[in-house]
Amino acid sequence: MLKNLRIVLVQPKGSGNIGSVARAMMNSGLKDLAIVGEGRIHSFSARAMAVHAREILQGARRFDTLREAVADCGLVVGTTCRSGLYRSHSRLPREVAPKIVSTIRTDSRQVALVFGPEDHGLSNRDLKYCQWLITIPTNQDYASLNVAQAVMVCLYEIFLASLKRSPREAISRAPAESIERLFDIMRRSLLKIGFLDSQNPEHILLAIRRILGRAGLEEKDVHILNGLFRQIEWYSDGGWRVTQEKERQGLKIR
Amino acid sequence: MLKNLRIVLVQPKGSGNIGSVARAMMNSGLKDLAIVGEGRIHSFSARAMAVHAREILQGARRFDTLREAVADCGLVVGTTCRSGLYRSHSRLPREVAPKIVSTIRTDSRQVALVFGPEDHGLSNRDLKYCQWLITIPTNQDYASLNVAQAVMVCLYEIFLASLKRSPREAISRAPAESIERLFDIMRRSLLKIGFLDSQNPEHILLAIRRILGRAGLEEKDVHILNGLFRQIEWYSDGGWRVTQEKERQGLKIR
Repeated sequence: MLKNLRIVLVQPKGSGNIGSVARAMMNSGLKDLAIVGEGRIHSFSARAMAVHAREILQGARRFDTLREAVADCGLVVGTTCRSGLYRSHSRLPREVAPKIVSTIRTDSRQVALVFGPEDHGLSNRDLKYCQWLITIPTNQDYASLNVAQAVMVCLYEIFLASLKRSPREAISRAPAESIERLFDIMRRSLLKIGFLDSQNPEHILLAIRRILGRAGLEEKDVHILNGLFRQIEWYSDGGWRVTQEKERQGLKIR
Repeated sequence: MLKNLRIVLVQPKGSGNIGSVARAMMNSGLKDLAIVGEGRIHSFSARAMAVHAREILQGARRFDTLREAVADCGLVVGTTCRSGLYRSHSRLPREVAPKIVSTIRTDSRQVALVFGPEDHGLSNRDLKYCQWLITIPTNQDYASLNVAQAVMVCLYEIFLASLKRSPREAISRAPAESIERLFDIMRRSLLKIGFLDSQNPEHILLAIRRILGRAGLEEKDVHILNGLFRQIEWYSDGGWRVTQEKERQGLKIR
């Protein structure tokens, strides 16, 4: 689906960066890479950093100007780490990503995402071709991201938006009753080995309830813990004879 | 604020990647970089990719093992691009980032974010030190991110989460090393009662690590659980004779 998204690198200096961009594109399901200017697409370090994304380098197209590189695009989105008069409408990647995705879905034209040169970023002249502008939030002491890192963050947001996946429920909890049965076995077994005070077994059990309550137990967790405390009970009910005997015979326990 | 977040690179191969990680850290306001193994921190390409973040390279510390690199940390978060039995509990960066931020805010200990070697990522052996696990969603045709890109995406999410106010989390975590000692006692005692398979004790222990990792253990929780598994060990080392005898005499155990 993100094949309709084009990454445009304007005057990239480091060829390793071009390779890293290609890899980030393939990680996110993109194909269409455009280079404005003289970037060394086919250098050793570009290929090395691309790893399994060399086909994207091979398919990359070169343009003399940004205008030409985005000529057939329905939407052009720029990126900047600087602020200023022409950049005050800039938005977070998270705000822009869903709009990019819905444009890709509804429009047959390519959408372009444009990144400037490593040293100065997009010029005001380049910005005028961009309908929207993205700024990645950073520590203000050092706001300039490596260009391939900036591409990765933008593609990560767009990829997530394209999945439209809402965060999963962290866990699916076991029903309260099966937890209570776990605590019944726990109480019985820990009394037998003398860990709980028979006058007040609930005191320590409460602390364990608190820990397991924070964890939130799924069915499979309850299953494992049931097994553990059943084994303690089995052992204290005479299982120790079996294990001692096997140990004496040098056999593997269980 | 994110100064309490440590980036741990396990056996990094590319020194340029180490420099890119340092830059991403400075972009996000981090300082604390730890390298497990022989990564070339001070090479030309590490310094070149770090650009203005060379002080982070200079301050980086080297450790022989992951266990040592995270020994003083209250929370250890791993990253993986693979799926599998030991990785199924992995979450999106967006789900985990707010939890990391609230832990940093409420706990004086460092939080570690751990990244594996470029070629294979974190091993199952390394994963057992990680209480939580993050997977960055990608195109399934090429799921392996460049390590510095993966660091950037995680730090981007954590940086964004740090800009928001979040409710205080009510626990102060025990250091990783005391959790490891708890697991040492747990392994020993559960082998003795035959609950763990002596051929592969780690399999079930990993499930228990996951449960307790979600819970987040405080010192007092570790104390209680140490007591529980020490009691199991005591019992299997002959304590059963004492309790059986007392039971026969109708006495209260302990």
